Amino acid sequence: MICIINGPNLNLLGKRQPEIYGSKSFDDHLREIRAEFPDTPIEYFQSNCEGEIIDKIHHLGYDNPECSGIVMNPGAYAHYSIAIADAISSVNIPVIEVHISNIHAREEFRHKSVTAPAAKGMICGLGLNGYNLAIRALLS
Amino acid sequence: MICIINGPNLNLLGKRQPEIYGSKSFDDHLREIRAEFPDTPIEYFQSNCEGEIIDKIHHLGYDNPECSGIVMNPGAYAHYSIAIADAISSVNIPVIEVHISNIHAREEFRHKSVTAPAAKGMICGLGLNGYNLAIRALLS
Amino acid sequence: MICIINGPNLNLLGKRQPEIYGSKSFDDHLREIRAEFPDTPIEYFQSNCEGEIIDKIHHLGYDNPECSGIVMNPGAYAHYSIAIADAISSVNIPVIEVHISNIHAREEFRHKSVTAPAAKGMICGLGLNGYNLAIRALLS
Amino acid sequence: MICIINGPNLNLLGKRQPEIYGSKSFDDHLREIRAEFPDTPIEYFQSNCEGEIIDKIHHLGYDNPECSGIVMNPGAYAHYSIAIADAISSVNIPVIEVHISNIHAREEFRHKSVTAPAAKGMICGLGLNGYNLAIRALLS
Amino acid sequence: MICIINGPNLNLLGKRQPEIYGSKSFDDHLREIRAEFPDTPIEYFQSNCEGEIIDKIHHLGYDNPECSGIVMNPGAYAHYSIAIADAISSVNIPVIEVHISNIHAREEFRHKSVTAPAAKGMICGLGLNGYNLAIRALLS
Amino acid sequence: MICIINGPNLNLLGKRQPEIYGSKSFDDHLREIRAEFPDTPIEYFQSNCEGEIIDKIHHLGYDNPECSGIVMNPGAYAHYSIAIADAISSVNIPVIEVHISNIHAREEFRHKSVTAPAAKGMICGLGLNGYNLAIRALLS
Amino acid sequence: MICIINGPNLNLLGKRQPEIYGSKSFDDHLREIRAEFPDTPIEYFQSNCEGEIIDKIHHLGYDNPECSGIVMNPGAYAHYSIAIADAISSVNIPVIEVHISNIHAREEFRHKSVTAPAAKGMICGLGLNGYNLAIRALLS
Amino acid sequence: MICIINGPNLNLLGKRQPEIYGSKSFDDHLREIRAEFPDTPIEYFQSNCEGEIIDKIHHLGYDNPECSGIVMNPGAYAHYSIAIADAISSVNIPVIEVHISNIHAREEFRHKSVTAPAAKGMICGLGLNGYNLAIRALLS
Amino acid sequence: MICIINGPNLNLLGKRQPEIYGSKSFDDHLREIRAEFPDTPIEYFQSNCEGEIIDKIHHLGYDNPECSGIVMNPGAYAHYSIAIADAISSVNIPVIEVHISNIHAREEFRHKSVTAPAAKGMICGLGLNGYNLAIRALLS
Amino acid sequence: MICIINGPNLNLLGKRQPEIYGSKSFDDHLREIRAEFPDTPIEYFQSNCEGEIIDKIHHLGYDNPECSGIVMNPGAYAHYSIAIADAISSVNIPVIEVHISNIHAREEFRHKSVTAPAAKGMICGLGLNGYNLAIRALLS
Amino acid sequence: MICIINGPNLNLLGKRQPEIYGSKSFDDHLREIRAEFPDTPIEYFQSNCEGEIIDKIHHLGYDNPECSGIVMNPGAYAHYSIAIADAISSVNIPVIEVHISNIHAREEFRHKSVTAPAAKGMICGLGLNGYNLAIRALLS
Amino acid sequence: MICIINGPNLNLLGKRQPEIYGSKSFDDHLREIRAEFPDTPIEYFQSNCEGEIIDKIHHLGYDNPECSGIVMNPGAYAHYSIAIADAISSVNIPVIEVHISNIHAREEFRHKSVTAPAAKGMICGLGLNGYNLAIRALLS
Repeated sequence: MICIINGPNLNLLGKRQPEIYGSKSFDDHLREIRAEFPDTPIEYFQSNCEGEIIDKIHHLGYDNPECSGIVMNPGAYAHYSIAIADAISSVNIPVIEVHISNIHAREEFRHKSVTAPAAKGMICGLGLNGYNLAIRALLS
Repeated sequence: MICIINGPNLNLLGKRQPEIYGSKSFDDHLREIRAEFPDTPIEYFQSNCEGEIIDKIHHLGYDNPECSGIVMNPGAYAHYSIAIADAISSVNIPVIEVHISNIHAREEFRHKSVTAPAAKGMICGLGLNGYNLAIRALLS
Repeated sequence: MICIINGPNLNLLGKRQPEIYGSKSFDDHLREIRAEFPDTPIEYFQSNCEGEIIDKIHHLGYDNPECSGIVMNPGAYAHYSIAIADAISSVNIPVIEVHISNIHAREEFRHKSVTAPAAKGMICGLGLNGYNLAIRALLS
Repeated sequence: MICIINGPNLNLLGKRQPEIYGSKSFDDHLREIRAEFPDTPIEYFQSNCEGEIIDKIHHLGYDNPECSGIVMNPGAYAHYSIAIADAISSVNIPVIEVHISNIHAREEFRHKSVTAPAAKGMICGLGLNGYNLAIRALLS
Repeated sequence: MICIINGPNLNLLGKRQPEIYGSKSFDDHLREIRAEFPDTPIEYFQSNCEGEIIDKIHHLGYDNPECSGIVMNPGAYAHYSIAIADAISSVNIPVIEVHISNIHAREEFRHKSVTAPAAKGMICGLGLNGYNLAIRALLS
Repeated sequence: MICIINGPNLNLLGKRQPEIYGSKSFDDHLREIRAEFPDTPIEYFQSNCEGEIIDKIHHLGYDNPECSGIVMNPGAYAHYSIAIADAISSVNIPVIEVHISNIHAREEFRHKSVTAPAAKGMICGLGLNGYNLAIRALLS
Repeated sequence: MICIINGPNLNLLGKRQPEIYGSKSFDDHLREIRAEFPDTPIEYFQSNCEGEIIDKIHHLGYDNPECSGIVMNPGAYAHYSIAIADAISSVNIPVIEVHISNIHAREEFRHKSVTAPAAKGMICGLGLNGYNLAIRALLS
Repeated sequence: MICIINGPNLNLLGKRQPEIYGSKSFDDHLREIRAEFPDTPIEYFQSNCEGEIIDKIHHLGYDNPECSGIVMNPGAYAHYSIAIADAISSVNIPVIEVHISNIHAREEFRHKSVTAPAAKGMICGLGLNGYNLAIRALLS
Repeated sequence: MICIINGPNLNLLGKRQPEIYGSKSFDDHLREIRAEFPDTPIEYFQSNCEGEIIDKIHHLGYDNPECSGIVMNPGAYAHYSIAIADAISSVNIPVIEVHISNIHAREEFRHKSVTAPAAKGMICGLGLNGYNLAIRALLS
Repeated sequence: MICIINGPNLNLLGKRQPEIYGSKSFDDHLREIRAEFPDTPIEYFQSNCEGEIIDKIHHLGYDNPECSGIVMNPGAYAHYSIAIADAISSVNIPVIEVHISNIHAREEFRHKSVTAPAAKGMICGLGLNGYNLAIRALLS
Repeated sequence: MICIINGPNLNLLGKRQPEIYGSKSFDDHLREIRAEFPDTPIEYFQSNCEGEIIDKIHHLGYDNPECSGIVMNPGAYAHYSIAIADAISSVNIPVIEVHISNIHAREEFRHKSVTAPAAKGMICGLGLNGYNLAIRALLS
Repeated sequence: MICIINGPNLNLLGKRQPEIYGSKSFDDHLREIRAEFPDTPIEYFQSNCEGEIIDKIHHLGYDNPECSGIVMNPGAYAHYSIAIADAISSVNIPVIEVHISNIHAREEFRHKSVTAPAAKGMICGLGLNGYNLAIRALLS
C-alpha cells in the first residue's frame, strides 16, 4: 500500500480558479492513479492541519505494516514545518515529496523546502503527473 | 455577511493582564461592532490552530455565498504561516488583516507579515477599533 | 484640526496613469473627506522635500495647539527617512501612517517602513479610503 | 501540580530507533519522575498540534489554579512557533523549556529557539533527566 | 527524439567509488532507458564544459526539429551557471532537470539550483531512475 | 528638448580637486554638448535637494510637452532615493542614468543604484562623455 | 571661523520633552560655546533639509576662506545620507561629527554612520559638551 | 570531584548592583552547593582570562584523574571564544554549560553560544540554582 | 581596430523569440555598426565558453598590437565569472561592458556584475545601440 | 583620579613605524596630559591581555574609591570583547572610549565597536588629543 | 609523476605587468622546479577553460596510474567552480591548492575558496615558491 | 633565528586522542624540525593566552634583532583575534600562518581567518609538515 498525503489548500484542487488549474479535482486524478497502478492499493489523506499530518505519518510508519511508501505534497508547510520534517525522519518507510508547480520558479521563499532534506527525493513542476511518477519511483 | 477571524492567543483578550489590556473581552467588543454595523451580519471565529483557520477561510470562500469579506487578525501566524497566506490567496472574497498593536514598533521578527501580501490591506496599531475600521473598509 | 501630509510623488494623483489610478485628484478626494467629517477642520500639506515635511511636523506639534492628529502618507520616504521618523517621535500628537497600496504586496524594499515604528499605527492597501479611516481613528 | 507538555514527534520515544534511543517510552520515564517527586502531582500532555499545545497552556494558566509550573519540550516548534511563545508569555505560571538533545550541537536551524525567550529558562542536552531537573527547578 | 545531457563529472559514473555508486556506467543505464522506451530515440550528450552544454542546448532547440524534450543533469553547474539557465530559457522545448542524489540533503550550497527556475521541473534523489521518470514526464 | 539633471555635489565639477578632475566645469562641458547637438535644445538643472529634483522631473513630465528625454546623474541619491526612482517611474518620458565614474569599481555601497531600475538604462565610467552618449541614445 | 551645522530635528532642543532633555535650547548652549572660545568666531546653521546642509558645506568649503573647520551633527542623516558624506569629502576643511547621545547604545540602525568615514573623527555620547570638545579639537 | 569554572565578571556576584543581584556572593552559594552534595568534593575556579580558563580545563582533563565533570559558566566568552570551545572538545570529561540568566531573552548577540556545541548540554535562566542542577546532572 | 566580444546565448539574437527581440541578427547589426564607423576595423567574436572568451581577451591584449579597445557583452558570465574579470584586468586595452537590457530592472541576481569593476565603464538598457555608443566612447 | 587604560598593541606607540606615527611614545604624551590637567592625578595602565584589562576595570570600580572616570582605548578588543563590555557595564564609574584613528574610515570589521554601547560615549579619529578631550569630558 | 595544473590567466605570468610580477614566465619557474626535484617527473598543464581542467583531473585520476599527486592553482575558479571541486573529490590522488598571492589579503570575494575543501590542503601567499613547497609536501 | 608560536590547545598534541593524532608530541616534532634545519636556531613558544601571544610577537619584532621570521599556528584565535592580527601587522618580520588541518574543510566558522590577511601567507591541511614548509619558505 502506498499513501498519498496532501497538505494545506490542496483540497481546493478543481474548485479554485478552474480556468487556470482546470476542473479536475484530486479525487478525479486519484481515480486515474488507481487505474495506472491497479495492483497497488492507494490510500489518500488530506489535511490543512500540521499536527494531523504528523499523526498520519506516525500512524503509517508504526501502525500500518503494509504501507511501503508515502507520496507527500506538504504544500506551504514544506517551507517551514520542521516538525513534519522530523516526522518524516522518524519513520522507516520512504517518503517522496511532490510539488505540482516548480517551486524554484516561484517566490523566493518557496525555493527552500525544509522537509525535502528528510525525504528520499523530490519531484516538482510536473503537474499532477508528479504523484504518478513518485508512486512509480516507490514501486521500482 | 462579514466574518471576523481571530488567530492564536486572541481568545485571552480581557482575561490576560487586565491592568494593561483592560477587562473588555472580544465578546464585549463584538457587541459594540454589531451595534455600529446593525445592517451587516457579523460572524465570529477564533482558533489557536492554523489548520482550523485555513478550513474556515475555505468554508467562507467556497461554501458561504453570502460572505462578502473577512477581517482577520492572524496573531503570531502572520509572521510564518505561508499556509494561511495561500488560503487567503485561494478565495475570491477580500480579506483585511488587522493587528491590535503596531507590529512595526515591536520585536524585529514581528515587523514582517507573510500573510499581509495575500490580503487586500492591513490595519495595525489602532487597537480594537482596527476591526471596526476594517469592516467599514469592506463595506465601502 | 487634523492635518493630512502627503509625501513625494503624491501630488501626481489623478494626473499620472489615469486609466489605472483614475482621474480623481487628491483635491477631489479632499473634498469628499471634508464632507464626511464636517465638524473637523482638515488641513492639507504636500511636499516632495523631506526637510519641508519635517518642518511641517514640527510646526504642527509645537506651534499649532489646535492640531489633534496627523494623517501621513510618507510615500517612498517611509522606506528610508529616519529623519522623518525622528520628527514623528518628537511631537506629542498622534500620527497615523497611510499607504494607498498594500506595501507588503509590492517590491521587497517597500515591505519595511522605517517611519511606521514612530507612528501610532498604519493603514495600507485600502486605497484613498485609508485617509478617511485614519481620520476616523484619530477622532475616536 | 506541575504539567509536562511534550510537542511534536515526542510520542515516538521508546518506539523509534530503539537501538539508539533505548526502549524506554516517555510513559516509563514519567513513572520514574513521579517516583522522584512523590509530593507533587505531575500531569502529562502530548500533542503534535501547535494549536492544541496553545490551548493546553491557556487552560493551565487560566482554568487550573493549582498548576504551579510547566515543563515544556516544544520539539521542532521551538524553532518557529511564535504562537506558542506568545502563549507562554500570556500566562503567569513559570515555564521551563527542555530539549533532550543539545540543540546547539545539531543542525544550524536548531540552534535558535523562538520559544526560549518567553520561557523562564532552558535545559538542553541532558537527556530525559532534563525533565526531572526542570521540575526540581520549579519546586525550588 | 529526447536528448539526455549530463554535465560535469557525470562521465565518471561506474568508475568512481564503485563500492558506493555501483559499477553500472551511464552507458549501461542508457541501454536500460532505451529498452524501457523503445519507440523514442534517445540521444546522449555529456560534457564537462559549460560552453559545450550551452552549444548543445542551442543546437537541440534550433537545428534539431525532431527533438521534443531534454533531460538534463547539470551536475555542479546547477548551482552557479546562470548562462546554462539562460540557454534553457532561450529554447522552446521542455527541459526537466534531474539530480541523482537529493541535493536538499547535501551541503548548503547544493540546496539552491539556479538552473531549475528555467526548467519545467526537477526530479532529485531518486537515483538513475530519475532519468527514466523525466523521460516519462516528457512523453506524457 | 532634452534636459540634463545633475544631483548633489555635481555643482562642484571643475572646482573640486582640479588636479584630479580637471578644471573644466560642467558649464564648459555643457557648451561642448550643445555644440555637438546643435539641433536639440539642451536644458540644464542642478540641485543638491532630493525634493527639487523630484519637482523638476514632474515638471518635465507633465508641464513641458516638448521635453523628449532626461539625462540624469543622481549622484549619491542613486544609492538610496526611492522617492526619485518613483518620480522617474511616474513620467512617460525616457530617463537615462549617467555616472561619471564606474560605480561598480568604487565602494560596495555605490554598486547598487535604486534609481537605475526605474530608468531606461545606465551609462557609467565613461567620464563627462557619458552625458553626450546618453543624449545620442535618446535621439536615436 | 568655525561653523556648527545641526541637522534634522535638532532645532527642537530645549522645546522637546524638557523634563528629559532639559530646557536649555541650542541657542543657550551656543552662548556658552562662544564664551568658552572668545577668540574664535562661531557661526551656526541648522536645517532639516539634506540639500540645504550640502549647500552650506559647499559654501563653507569654497566661498568662505576664513572657515577653518566644521562641527556637524547630521542627526538622522548620519545613517543614510551618502550625499552629505560626499559633500564632506569634497571640501578641504576638517569636519568633526558630533552626536549628543551614544549612537552605539541605541537602536541597531543608529550604530552605523555613513557620514563618519568622510569626517576627520567623531564624538558621541558626551551631550552638548561634544560640540565644545570638537571645537577644541579643531583649534588644536 | 567536580570543578566549577566561572568566567569573566562572575567574580563580582554579590558585589555588583546588590539591590538587583542580591548580596549573596558566589562564595556563599558555593557553601550551599557543598552542603547539598556533601559526598562530592567541589573545586572552584574563576578567572577573567580566556587563556587561564583553557589552562584549567586542560589541567582538569589531563592531570587530575579524580575530576569527573566540569560545570562551566563561560560568561561573555560563551559568545566568541572558539578557543574555549576547542578546549572543552579536547578533554574527555563531561562539561555542562550554565548561564544564570536566560541568554535567549537578552540582546541578540547573547542568543548564540559558540561553546555550547562542545559541551554536553546547557542550563540557562534558572539563577544560581543552575549550578546545583548541573552538578546533579553530572552525578546522575 | 576594435573588437566586439559577445558571451553566452548572444548568438541567438534574431533567432530567439523574434516577436520580442526582432528578427535582426547580430550580423545585421554588425553591418550597421561598420557603416557607422567606416574608418575603424571592427572585429567580432562570440563564444558560449568562458575559457574561449578569456583566450580571446589575452590574444587581443598581447598578440594584437592594433587592437585599441574591446566592447564586451559578457551575457550571464557578468554575474559570476571572476576569471573573465581577471582577464580584463590583465590587459592594458580599455574594455567597455555592454548589456542590451537594463540589468538593474531584471531579477535580483542580474543586478550585480562581477566583471564591471574590471572594465572602464558599463552601458546597459540601451538595446543594440549600446554597442555603437561603446565604440564611440572608445574612439573619443 | 582618572585612569587611562590602553589595550593591545598600544604599547608600541612611538616605536612602530615612526615615520608614520611619529616618535612620540605614549609616555611622552602622558606627560603632556598631566601637564594639561595638573589638578587631576592620572593613572596609566596598558595590557595586551583581555583578562588583565577586565581585572583592572573591576579594581578601579570596586577597590579604588577615588577613581572618578576611565578613559579606555580598547584597541582591537573593541571589535569583539563582549567580556570587556560587560566589565564596563558592571562598574559605576563613567568610561569614555577613545580610538586614535577614525575607525569608521578603516576596514569594515573596525566600524562596529561592541564595547562602545557599554561606555558613556566615544571619541575617535582625533589622534592622541582624543585622550585629553575624554579627560576634559570626564571632568566637566 | 606529479602534475601541476594552472587555471585561468596564469598563462600570462612573466608577460603581464613585468615591472610588478617580474619577467620570469612559468616556463622558467618550471625549469627551476624540475631542477629542485630531479627524481620526480613534473607534468605541466594550463587552461583557461573550466571543462578542460576537469577533463585533465579525470585523466590524471583514472588513466594515468603513475600520477601520485596534483598541485593546482585554480586561479579565479577557486572562488566559484563547484564543478572543479567535485572533480577533485572524485579522484583518489591528493591535490594541493596553491595561490601565488595571499587570497585572504585581497578583495572580500577572494577570501573564500570553494575548491579548497575538496583539496588536501592549501598554500597561499608564498609566491611561485608555493608550487615547490606543495610538491615537497606531496613527496613527503 | 626563526620562532614557532603555537596558540591555544596546541600544547595537547600527542596527548589528546593519540589514536587519531598519534602519540608524537610537538616536542618530538620540534626535534625533527631542528634536525632538518641544523643551521637555523628554532625558538619555540606556546601559550593559550591571547595577550601572551601578542607580547611574544612584540618581543620578537622589537627586542630580538636576530629573529628573521615567525611561523605561527594561532589555533582558534585565527578566527576572531583581530588583536593578534594587529600585532602581526605591527612588526616588520615576516609571519607565515600554519594550520595542521584543512580549515576550509571543517565547520563554516573555521573557514575564515582574521589573522591570515596580516600574515605573508598561509599553509593549511598538510599536517605537522606545514611547520617545516613554512620555515623553508622563510629561509628561501
